[in-house]
Amino acid sequence: MRARELAVDYETVDVHSDALEAARLMAEHSLPGLLVLDERGAPKAILPAAEMVKMLVPGYVVEDPALAAVVDEAHADLLCRALVGRRVGDCLSRTAAPPPIADPDDTALEVAALMARVHSPVVAVAMRTKDHTELLGVITAAHLLHRLLAHTGTR
Amino acid sequence: MRARELAVDYETVDVHSDALEAARLMAEHSLPGLLVLDERGAPKAILPAAEMVKMLVPGYVVEDPALAAVVDEAHADLLCRALVGRRVGDCLSRTAAPPPIADPDDTALEVAALMARVHSPVVAVAMRTKDHTELLGVITAAHLLHRLLAHTGTR
Repeated sequence: MRARELAVDYETVDVHSDALEAARLMAEHSLPGLLVLDERGAPKAILPAAEMVKMLVPGYVVEDPALAAVVDEAHADLLCRALVGRRVGDCLSRTAAPPPIADPDDTALEVAALMARVHSPVVAVAMRTKDHTELLGVITAAHLLHRLLAHTGTR
Repeated sequence: MRARELAVDYETVDVHSDALEAARLMAEHSLPGLLVLDERGAPKAILPAAEMVKMLVPGYVVEDPALAAVVDEAHADLLCRALVGRRVGDCLSRTAAPPPIADPDDTALEVAALMARVHSPVVAVAMRTKDHTELLGVITAAHLLHRLLAHTGTR
């Protein structure tokens, strides 16, 4: 089985998407992260939900847990203002690496080797030409385990 | 709202659990990871599904992607033997840090600050006494976003 057949849809946003909308998307669909595309539709980064949580919490609260205990819930309203007017691109950590990209014809084992090499929970599958990248979907680690274990037969 | 009310069930295994069974659990329920408990039931580590994929792929294939392309799928059967007879504890990376643990009475903002501080996608909620830790559940980043954004009212 090839990467193109293993690839599934995954929620994507682009670097110009509204950050608060992206956070709502993760919250409403219980997503651990979103795939962020660049201006040309190529995979640029994975934006983890935990990174969005970090954006919401003021730096002085992160540094001093005692402060977190005394800010009451009504003020959580204020937290979300941290995202108002921001773009997804503003939320990406500077160290965010692009997700690994597999070719549509890669085998399951090639995808697994790529995932293992870069320690990524997800691999994007995309057709790449010299000046264009078309995303076909993603393959998660759990999905790949499912495929690799399917060959073990009876338990 | 307190951590005890935000905590939800999460699949757990312990360090002595069978590694192949743990991999199947992730595969069958599409889990990005499992929470690993120590002998006393206290959270010890998060075992990511990608780490299990890495266990399945022979080191020489990880190092040389060209080899991955020539191993055919029938041999995937052999891959799973890498897990036979292994325990979950054998699959934990030596650098795997214990997950952050919140107290049941922590506020959502305290949990968020903890998550932001340690860059974890999940926080365990547990009652801790001097010689016992009782796991109540976990809070994921997406779940926490859901809670924090609930206060923003209309879109």
